[in-house]
Amino acid sequence: SIAGHYTYQQTLPQILHELADSVQPEEAPDLYGSGALINDFEAEVARLLGKESAVFMPSGTMCQQIALRIWTDRRHLSRVGFHPTAHLELHEFQAPQRLHDLQTVLIGSPYQLMTLADLQAVKEPLGALLLELPQREIGGQLPTWDELTAMTSWARERGIVLHMDGARLWECKPYYQRDYAEIAGLFDSVYVSFYKSLGGIAGAVLAGPADVIDEARIWQRRQGGNLYQLYPYVLSARKGLAERLDRMEAYHQKAKAIAAALSAFPQIEIMPAVPQTHMMHVFIRGEREELNGAALEVAEESGTWLFGGVAPTQIPAYQKFELSVGDASLDVSDEEIATLFQQLFDKVEQSKVERSL
Amino acid sequence: SIAGHYTYQQTLPQILHELADSVQPEEAPDLYGSGALINDFEAEVARLLGKESAVFMPSGTMCQQIALRIWTDRRHLSRVGFHPTAHLELHEFQAPQRLHDLQTVLIGSPYQLMTLADLQAVKEPLGALLLELPQREIGGQLPTWDELTAMTSWARERGIVLHMDGARLWECKPYYQRDYAEIAGLFDSVYVSFYKSLGGIAGAVLAGPADVIDEARIWQRRQGGNLYQLYPYVLSARKGLAERLDRMEAYHQKAKAIAAALSAFPQIEIMPAVPQTHMMHVFIRGEREELNGAALEVAEESGTWLFGGVAPTQIPAYQKFELSVGDASLDVSDEEIATLFQQLFDKVEQSKVERSL
Repeated sequence: SIAGHYTYQQTLPQILHELADSVQPEEAPDLYGSGALINDFEAEVARLLGKESAVFMPSGTMCQQIALRIWTDRRHLSRVGFHPTAHLELHEFQAPQRLHDLQTVLIGSPYQLMTLADLQAVKEPLGALLLELPQREIGGQLPTWDELTAMTSWARERGIVLHMDGARLWECKPYYQRDYAEIAGLFDSVYVSFYKSLGGIAGAVLAGPADVIDEARIWQRRQGGNLYQLYPYVLSARKGLAERLDRMEAYHQKAKAIAAALSAFPQIEIMPAVPQTHMMHVFIRGEREELNGAALEVAEESGTWLFGGVAPTQIPAYQKFELSVGDASLDVSDEEIATLFQQLFDKVEQSKVERSL
Repeated sequence: SIAGHYTYQQTLPQILHELADSVQPEEAPDLYGSGALINDFEAEVARLLGKESAVFMPSGTMCQQIALRIWTDRRHLSRVGFHPTAHLELHEFQAPQRLHDLQTVLIGSPYQLMTLADLQAVKEPLGALLLELPQREIGGQLPTWDELTAMTSWARERGIVLHMDGARLWECKPYYQRDYAEIAGLFDSVYVSFYKSLGGIAGAVLAGPADVIDEARIWQRRQGGNLYQLYPYVLSARKGLAERLDRMEAYHQKAKAIAAALSAFPQIEIMPAVPQTHMMHVFIRGEREELNGAALEVAEESGTWLFGGVAPTQIPAYQKFELSVGDASLDVSDEEIATLFQQLFDKVEQSKVERSL
């Protein structure tokens, strides 16, 4: 594959044996969120993010609902603002409303980054504002540092609590050229994930002030996430952080190189044109089934997947896939990628000709 | 230890290597609740419980809140009844109220099993009734089959949905001498756990009608439990079920033998006097720190823990611990256990004498 890590090539026994080998025999399992194994890792992530405290949870969905619930409780205002493509809006079946009685305000265009002007257009009080860095559903885009700080200042001036959806925060460093703690420092609380760029099994951390994290542990129990043992996730998160955090710059460079190679094709549009992280959305002119069929043929012949499948877009003539660079991407040259896409388009043309005969 | 399994003797690397060895190389990981690995196991548990469908979740807390939310939504009556020692009442920080706007009705005495008479004393309509089999906080007690069916019939006649907290349902078979499906058949939905008697890492299943389980998957996503990958828990649950389900009768016999041995001591009261499952609560007359100190000495001298620590009870002269039989218990003879408890009480006496000198 030109995307992701090599875990898809590993068998489950291999993954679990490797995980076992990453543990010291004297390390004891966690117990309902206690124990050095989990608490030391939480402290490590808190330090990395420059926050006072952190708690490990099974999922980001849990981290973020809990953060917003706590902050809005404290502000006595259960209204939160976020982008129309926020995970909370798209992927959680109205959990903020159904579980936490939160009112939501969608800010900005679903196709573009939220801006200071979008915030200024909000005409009702907010208890909390969630910003996602980078913005996954629009190809991993990031606001400039100036725009970002202008937005967070706007919120601070109004006493609006700032929470960061940092599911892919690890990917932001090459663009901002700032430490994670400095980026996270603009926010009151931050959620980070371990199974995306870092290749873990699952798991997330919520970081922030100690009193908020202490309360978050109560909500974690309430939501059913204070598990008897979380160690498989903690161990894989620890392993991913140790192995892959230093590769973010290399992933970013590769993402830019792939984007440049693909941009040469008139059938392709890249969002963002120059990747700001190591992900991008790739729009391809063509029909869905033809593109998927051609990609399968290319994979069969070359052993390399260009994409697993394309999805429809707003413009019927274009299909799309998400490309996130990982260890596997680094081992395919840009020339090879260009050659394989050329083969893809040749196959599409060929099948058109064959059908017209 | 005279209780539990041997996992406490294993290192984490050993546990994870064994888990890896339980997987076939061709088995693919689950993905957000999909895939043969997780779905086949769900089907296996559904069959075992005689239910149409089942869903694997990270925790029982999540399973039960979700079941009660769905059932009460359908009944248009958000009021649920359960025992005063239900997990939902004692260990979830008012999650039913805070997350799901449920009204709760506590039925019966905290020190005794719920009875038909207790149900008849409920004077307000209920949307759902939760029964725990066996009742953990009172030593794993079970109602007789006649009392149980009288209670479930009472609920059915009133259109009250029945949900079973079956965290330790696996332990009930020796007492009822009925298949799990027959016991579960009295209920509309059932939650079962895999890390207690079965020795898994964590994880739970909710089983019931297909449409309820389909909706439960939505709520699982909402609560943050529809994880990217759950396979470490699924694999350990599968391993525990395969290895330990057939040992329940042996555990039960051992529990009865231990209870008989301990009952011979005038300082000890057992609840229930004859264990109905393979757990019991042991009340010991004595002071907490003296008992804990003596148990530590016994463990140091014999290599065997009698209990990890005692907790206070309603009666100041008595302390208590929970004893749950597992693989480790089977390897300690009843005579050895009696001898070790005699040593414990001798040490307590000795320290009393020493202090009085």
